[in-house]
Amino acid sequence: MFHGAEPRPRWSVAGRWTGCYCPRVAGSNARPIGVFDSGLGGLTVARAIAARLPSERIVYLGDTARVPYGTRSAETVLRYAQACGARLAERDIKLLVVACNTVSAVALDTLRVQLDVPVLGVVTPGARAGVAASRAGRLGVLATAGTIASGAYPRAVASLDSRVEVFARPAPLFVPLAEEGWVDGEVPRLVARRYLAPLVEDGVDALVLGCTHYPLLAPVIAEVAAELVGPALRIVDSAEATAEELAGLLDARGLSAPADASRVAPLSILVTDRPADFASPASRFLGQPVETLPVEQIDL
Amino acid sequence: MFHGAEPRPRWSVAGRWTGCYCPRVAGSNARPIGVFDSGLGGLTVARAIAARLPSERIVYLGDTARVPYGTRSAETVLRYAQACGARLAERDIKLLVVACNTVSAVALDTLRVQLDVPVLGVVTPGARAGVAASRAGRLGVLATAGTIASGAYPRAVASLDSRVEVFARPAPLFVPLAEEGWVDGEVPRLVARRYLAPLVEDGVDALVLGCTHYPLLAPVIAEVAAELVGPALRIVDSAEATAEELAGLLDARGLSAPADASRVAPLSILVTDRPADFASPASRFLGQPVETLPVEQIDL
Repeated sequence: MFHGAEPRPRWSVAGRWTGCYCPRVAGSNARPIGVFDSGLGGLTVARAIAARLPSERIVYLGDTARVPYGTRSAETVLRYAQACGARLAERDIKLLVVACNTVSAVALDTLRVQLDVPVLGVVTPGARAGVAASRAGRLGVLATAGTIASGAYPRAVASLDSRVEVFARPAPLFVPLAEEGWVDGEVPRLVARRYLAPLVEDGVDALVLGCTHYPLLAPVIAEVAAELVGPALRIVDSAEATAEELAGLLDARGLSAPADASRVAPLSILVTDRPADFASPASRFLGQPVETLPVEQIDL
Repeated sequence: MFHGAEPRPRWSVAGRWTGCYCPRVAGSNARPIGVFDSGLGGLTVARAIAARLPSERIVYLGDTARVPYGTRSAETVLRYAQACGARLAERDIKLLVVACNTVSAVALDTLRVQLDVPVLGVVTPGARAGVAASRAGRLGVLATAGTIASGAYPRAVASLDSRVEVFARPAPLFVPLAEEGWVDGEVPRLVARRYLAPLVEDGVDALVLGCTHYPLLAPVIAEVAAELVGPALRIVDSAEATAEELAGLLDARGLSAPADASRVAPLSILVTDRPADFASPASRFLGQPVETLPVEQIDL
């Protein structure tokens, strides 16, 4: 259940601004950053943001009642994303991070119009960090089948540097491995080897982990990559890349929180279903026990 | 796309009988059996039915737009199941097999009232075969986390033989392994070993595979079981158990198809989303290329 006083919403349900506010006033910069994902995976992004920007408050919304989005049509994903965006707007967020590759691929522009606050996805930061990491211009991407099919990464890379070739492959087994907490030992190592081997054959020299679940497996992926090609293959965690890009964006827009903003409730969590089933996997994604955090179930 | 003439529906959309019909007339016994699952997994049940009852026609409905059901609330599952049941009723089915553990756990009674044809789930046949297979009265069940949490297997076993103790454990990684076609080799073997080891410690002497995805992994599960305890551990495939129980039910109700009923379109498939993405995994579940079969996308 949710504890502690939330700031009064300054947004109507439709996501339109209803209050009076100057974004450069330090007090309003204490407003939280909204982080939205179809489920729990986005907590890896929340974790990376908390590590990179410890002064910021975060309100996380995981649409656990309707996860996974990857198998839904674009229209359905858009509808879900708008409902989640409106709900986060009610929490008076100053910026929205879409920590979901599927939503990032189809709904960013719509959310920008709807919410009237800066909206940052995970695909472009990941692609940008990948392009920067690849010297040979051969960039690997591992993601879910849905993200691969959407073509979001090749599109993002092409818009950044058309000379970089993208080799994108699905790595669907990483998701249940991360959810089950099977992140070291022989099984994840064998699975990682199977997914990395064709990319190594493609000659990639940088690899973007293009799914919010994959950072949990980053150590074993890095270990297998080192085994297959040595340190020549650089691993890019799109959660960290997103936190880095967010830091620049807050700074550029004058939205960075004052140093003490996160002292009360640095992270609150909203879920749409089964808050009870959520604690154990969520703690793994977040790297800390969620039992100590305010978790609230909401209806959408 | 669907080809070939379907018999005219004798049911209204609400699933109420609107025609005049005697179930013991041989011609009407040529009506198909409806098989319903949240996704593709139920095709293992369709496959077992086709093997056991080659004269029967089957109409399969996979609710691929809303899979998985295991994470939804009981009310939502019930609503989805009723919509799917009504749609299959329009195909003039003579009997409905619910090839989904989640739906079997919560919706059988409602579907029986709604459809007015015999409705068979997968849990009771699996539990019955498990009880028959266990001599020591210590029965293992592997299923998804949702099915385990529902308590459906212990309940079904208790109603059959209260002396049999059930040891039910989730085996969630089997689902993506089956969907990806990783059904032999080191990874599934290691995963199976991890799931079977605690059941072996519990001293079970029979094991029900309580998820429609698991039959694809039955060979590797049997191999690991033999390795851990020898032939003493009997593996029960609930798809085969369901097909067996169905054969008895059709016979008892005088509903068995005439020998030539399945000559035209023995299996038609309805899906609610993405028929294109469906072919490759569906072929694995079915054990034959679905490209050769009529697949129709329907809206619910």
